[in-house]
Amino acid sequence: MATILTLAGDGIGPEIMTQAIDVLEAVNKKFALGLTLESGLIGGVAIDATGEPLPDETLARARAADAVLLGAVGGPKWDGIERSKRPERGLLKIRGELGLFANLRVAKLYPQLANASSIKPDIIAGLDLLIVRELTGGIYFGEPRGIRTLENGEQQGYNTMVYSTSEIKRIGKVAFELAKTRAEAAGTAAKVCSVDKANVLEVTELWKQTMTQMQQADYSDVALSHMYADNACMQLIKDPKQFDVMVTGNMFGDILSDEAAMLTGSIGMLPSASLDEAGKGMYEPCHGSAPDIAGQDKANPLATVLSVAMMLRYTFKQEAAAQAIEQAVSEVLDDGLRTVDILDSSEAGLKQVGCQEMGQAVLAKL
Amino acid sequence: MATILTLAGDGIGPEIMTQAIDVLEAVNKKFALGLTLESGLIGGVAIDATGEPLPDETLARARAADAVLLGAVGGPKWDGIERSKRPERGLLKIRGELGLFANLRVAKLYPQLANASSIKPDIIAGLDLLIVRELTGGIYFGEPRGIRTLENGEQQGYNTMVYSTSEIKRIGKVAFELAKTRAEAAGTAAKVCSVDKANVLEVTELWKQTMTQMQQADYSDVALSHMYADNACMQLIKDPKQFDVMVTGNMFGDILSDEAAMLTGSIGMLPSASLDEAGKGMYEPCHGSAPDIAGQDKANPLATVLSVAMMLRYTFKQEAAAQAIEQAVSEVLDDGLRTVDILDSSEAGLKQVGCQEMGQAVLAKL
Ligand SMILES: CC(C)[C@H](C(=O)O)[C@@H](O)C(=O)O
Ligand SMILES: CC(C)[C@H](C(=O)O)[C@@H](O)C(=O)O
Repeated sequence: MATILTLAGDGIGPEIMTQAIDVLEAVNKKFALGLTLESGLIGGVAIDATGEPLPDETLARARAADAVLLGAVGGPKWDGIERSKRPERGLLKIRGELGLFANLRVAKLYPQLANASSIKPDIIAGLDLLIVRELTGGIYFGEPRGIRTLENGEQQGYNTMVYSTSEIKRIGKVAFELAKTRAEAAGTAAKVCSVDKANVLEVTELWKQTMTQMQQADYSDVALSHMYADNACMQLIKDPKQFDVMVTGNMFGDILSDEAAMLTGSIGMLPSASLDEAGKGMYEPCHGSAPDIAGQDKANPLATVLSVAMMLRYTFKQEAAAQAIEQAVSEVLDDGLRTVDILDSSEAGLKQVGCQEMGQAVLAKL
Repeated sequence: MATILTLAGDGIGPEIMTQAIDVLEAVNKKFALGLTLESGLIGGVAIDATGEPLPDETLARARAADAVLLGAVGGPKWDGIERSKRPERGLLKIRGELGLFANLRVAKLYPQLANASSIKPDIIAGLDLLIVRELTGGIYFGEPRGIRTLENGEQQGYNTMVYSTSEIKRIGKVAFELAKTRAEAAGTAAKVCSVDKANVLEVTELWKQTMTQMQQADYSDVALSHMYADNACMQLIKDPKQFDVMVTGNMFGDILSDEAAMLTGSIGMLPSASLDEAGKGMYEPCHGSAPDIAGQDKANPLATVLSVAMMLRYTFKQEAAAQAIEQAVSEVLDDGLRTVDILDSSEAGLKQVGCQEMGQAVLAKL
């Protein structure tokens, strides 16, 4: 009997979570998965209720659960709070405490939504790119960090970007293995592009060397290339289909995965997984809490619904149930249903729907 | 009598510099500017000749000169060299030693080249965006840095991202002032977007606070907004025309300025200026040394030619001469001349030319 902890969070979190839970309950029944759902507090709502962005109780229940489904955290309401108590701290803390070092973000173009992108159709047609981002190290967690007063009276802020060989190997392995799995499924050759700034930063020089050594020692069947972060950011725009799996550190991964998502024009569609060494994971949409549209039934619930599919696939090995959800999503898109973020007003035959109508349409397909 | 030091560097550096020097000599004569040109070594060619990527002699002459015109540095030939001796170190050192803290990169769409971009025409039509990047601080120069062996025998790489209030104010001032100048010229309201990752990094929290204080104290006539780096990377793709001036630190600036350049589809067209506190500067194309096409007369010399125009404008206050160059470049584009990087093979009436033919065509217009 497996348990899933749902953490709706802030902004549009509760609305999208409601729809995702409906979908999860439906496949739970249909495929007799035997999953039990619990809910908990994180982010701003947790601050309001307990004073902490990640209450001990939530953390304890997340540890006990087999998987976590997260909505989104943060909003202007909590911007003025002292740094250590802000909603984002809850997110960073749960990632760190659960050891969720491997963040998988897929940038996939839904053919039904090709027009929603700012990119020309031929550049992105068929795009299906996986970014493997290291999530519990690098400059996000590095010490020392802070803001201090210098002798001359002015202030100085500082952070430390740090990676050890073992941290690099751990995430490198995930990238190489996933490249092999993806290549096998697609009948293509496996390839990984490792992104660094080794011409400037020593920490990423170690990153680059370590990736090279791993490839030579254990992954001679995977083609490894290296790219500087600035160039990678350009190449994603120029020719994103040159990539299959990209692997990089926490900060470059934050930037590049958002960029890749935006290429598809539909960040409201993209799920993510954050996994620990045993494959236990937290699943969440790539988009944020969108406080400007919260509570207006405008949000797109599909990224969260697709995060449920990812959870069933990666943590519970329920491929059939995962595919059933993905199929249902594809069908509602085929039917022309669109939340406002993916609506192309120049296209005929589309119907604008709210968060709830979209979620229930997916449910009806199951 | 003013002196310009030209540093051609590596890869395509010498070819593009030859064309840029021809153009510079021509306006020097036409506008009786009285400029004297010298040349020196930097990057890989300097390593080959002296063992150092920035020989003392080059640095001394750069200090003595009124402006520096740089081609590009680096290439696979020098990849194996010890880090402190690589070509890129020469570039970082000259930036640091000359105090060139303000890097200005303009992402401007040439209407003649609108089709060269991966971005849909309506998203980028009329794009003219200035990125102000801090160039002598942040994680590029922060200490401590290095790769060390830990007690457990594994290696650890580390770098430090650091900014003090005075460094932030210095670059902030450049951004606010340029926003006012640009707004005046365009007859619009001045606006600056400051890019940080204040939700995670203390150093950029100080950045954000300092920008806010400056705006409140001295620039209430400039609208200031803040954006996280990951979101900025997305917004540049979604709607780049929402920005006018963006200001950010060294590393985010490296990534975002390359991204912005790629939006125009013609990084071979984009010049940059790196200025010190007195307005003395180093001018260089935004693109790199492109070793794969070096020596084949394929490179686009226009970014370097336009860097000459920027130099005349910013360091020598010769607006008429600067405009004459920009006008000449625009005319050769109107004539349909294209180097391969900006050639749209689906467009009729274009003529593919090499580096030299392009340079000489600009010269002929002057
Ligand atoms: C909210 C923020 C702390 C977070 C991050 O930077 O990791 C977000 O941008 C993400 O990518 O999940
Ligand atoms: C070559 C490299 C050191 C340099 C940088 O990162 O600053 C380059 O990418 C640039 O943007 O000028």
